[in-house]
Amino acid sequence: MDDAVRERLQALRARMAQQGADLLAIGPGANMTWLLGFHPHPDERPCLLLVGPQREAFLMPALNAEGSRQNTDIAFHTWDDADGPDAALATALDDVGARDAKNVVVDEAMRADFALLVLDALPGSKHSFTDATLGALRMRKGEEEYRALKMNAGLADEAMQAAFAAVRAGMTEIELADIISENFESNGAKPLFRIVGAGANGAFPHHQTGDTVISPGDALVVDIGARKGTFSSDITRMIVVGEPPEGYQEVHAIVEAAVGAAMQAARPGVRASKVDAAARNVITEAGYGEYFVHRTGHGMGVEGHEPPYITSTSDVVLDTGMVFSIEPGIYLPGRFGIRLEDIVILREDGPEILSGLSRDAHFVQV
Amino acid sequence: MDDAVRERLQALRARMAQQGADLLAIGPGANMTWLLGFHPHPDERPCLLLVGPQREAFLMPALNAEGSRQNTDIAFHTWDDADGPDAALATALDDVGARDAKNVVVDEAMRADFALLVLDALPGSKHSFTDATLGALRMRKGEEEYRALKMNAGLADEAMQAAFAAVRAGMTEIELADIISENFESNGAKPLFRIVGAGANGAFPHHQTGDTVISPGDALVVDIGARKGTFSSDITRMIVVGEPPEGYQEVHAIVEAAVGAAMQAARPGVRASKVDAAARNVITEAGYGEYFVHRTGHGMGVEGHEPPYITSTSDVVLDTGMVFSIEPGIYLPGRFGIRLEDIVILREDGPEILSGLSRDAHFVQV
Repeated sequence: MDDAVRERLQALRARMAQQGADLLAIGPGANMTWLLGFHPHPDERPCLLLVGPQREAFLMPALNAEGSRQNTDIAFHTWDDADGPDAALATALDDVGARDAKNVVVDEAMRADFALLVLDALPGSKHSFTDATLGALRMRKGEEEYRALKMNAGLADEAMQAAFAAVRAGMTEIELADIISENFESNGAKPLFRIVGAGANGAFPHHQTGDTVISPGDALVVDIGARKGTFSSDITRMIVVGEPPEGYQEVHAIVEAAVGAAMQAARPGVRASKVDAAARNVITEAGYGEYFVHRTGHGMGVEGHEPPYITSTSDVVLDTGMVFSIEPGIYLPGRFGIRLEDIVILREDGPEILSGLSRDAHFVQV
Repeated sequence: MDDAVRERLQALRARMAQQGADLLAIGPGANMTWLLGFHPHPDERPCLLLVGPQREAFLMPALNAEGSRQNTDIAFHTWDDADGPDAALATALDDVGARDAKNVVVDEAMRADFALLVLDALPGSKHSFTDATLGALRMRKGEEEYRALKMNAGLADEAMQAAFAAVRAGMTEIELADIISENFESNGAKPLFRIVGAGANGAFPHHQTGDTVISPGDALVVDIGARKGTFSSDITRMIVVGEPPEGYQEVHAIVEAAVGAAMQAARPGVRASKVDAAARNVITEAGYGEYFVHRTGHGMGVEGHEPPYITSTSDVVLDTGMVFSIEPGIYLPGRFGIRLEDIVILREDGPEILSGLSRDAHFVQV
């Protein structure tokens, strides 16, 4: 086991002890990638890392044992298709000292049957998710993670600028999205999403980019991200083709003011809900509260969406090193939508924005 | 709601009644795609289709409601980030008549937190997975699904033949895998996996294709699949470069005999475990039982792996229209592995193989 993994396991156990958790169970996915630097082949065969108070062990499908052994020296309790996982799970729970675990931390993102396999084997136990343990650790990024995120943000800026350069009335949403993807790919990044919402489509926050033709008078929501290495990017900017639709400038200014208010509110020691409130108040006071239908932001790391979530109900206390989006929006059905999104890392004196691009709309002549 | 969806919901309720289930909860994923023909944007926001005895309804993140509305007229109980899903879940459970559900069928593949949200809201309820309800229906394919699977199998045959034509000593595993991917892509199919395990690497059933150079005397396990449309392909064939390794021909013949025995055993009315036993007995009697470390096969449909699983413990009674793989293997650590895999659809008189390729090894001169 390398030192970084050992340190993360140690920090995790300290958090578990604080929370009174006597077992943590995670499946192949982002939580495991963060903790161990890899995860075994994910499929329907139960595969779990079990972390007990002193020891950790894998419940491991025999089929994947040899392949996974190349990545870790953690103990494996293997099971094969003929026997099923129950016996191996029992010995694994014994091994990690969690045969009678009462407070189980469950990987919220793993398959339901993986979680219920563990919980059904520990009748009477209570469960929680990883927010206060592994999740709390994952939220604070180190400088190496910062550099990887900053590099990705630079690639997203370049892809957005490629869209600015290429966009024309008469093009479809997908054609513009493909230009963005090609730019990412030319830099070795894998496109993850490319929302191009033209005109009234922009009023769907998660519009499915399609064959809608971009027309004069359209405002376009362009929300893109790609992955290079372990981390990824996420940025939203606006394009206006020809004359902006009625009310556009006013609404853009309100969303921009909401971004600014959230940036001002985001400081170490402040609850995430205060940042959401800062953005939301600006929009509500301007009379558009009912059209801001989502949270203000989400964390970003090994996953594109991860804690801290910047919501009206989040009790997470922000701290230095946390990376999250600030992305308020106003969505006017049948007319247009406006979202402005930046990823920030929280520093002692406030958020550092990873992107170098202005949040002003890019105007295209027709 | 179109007629096909209505029919599937009706058939599902009949199965639920048989099983005494009073609620089924599924998340955005393959089960929902099978049932409704679409699924909403999947993320960490709880999104569930709840099917009660008479009615069905969605627990739906407000953010995705308008986008999803384009695909279905099922009732939505929306929740927004500010409020969280609890209240909307309660009204949705009321709506579908499942406020006091005792027997809940849970989508095994959905996120753990989605499943626990429902189960925690129904204290004292019991849970099971979809095997006997939705899963039982998904297993039997209609003729339209058959045609889509057969088309995909044809593309996989072509990609495998491209590998046969291109393979040379001196090439790396990844180079061969890329030729396979390019062939799939040239036919509009998206590569899903391409295991190329050369020499001793072939003894890892799920070998991670890498930079190992293919050398004279290597046997290569080539297990590939791609997706075109809703369905996909999955086939494994062997390539031998130069002189086969010692014992190769004997072991290949045993694996081929195991395939044949499974094909003979697979008939409507027979338990899946009997098919596994037929293949396994051949290998065990030949003295290689300990080297056949996985099940004999898996179903295939909207997912690449789905029921029926052909395992030593599966009680599923095979029926016409079921589609599954038959893929015994023998893995000799440090030497080589041999797996031969075909996808079949079960007909009245036995399995129809979707591939047109011989299972003989492809021999390459050096």
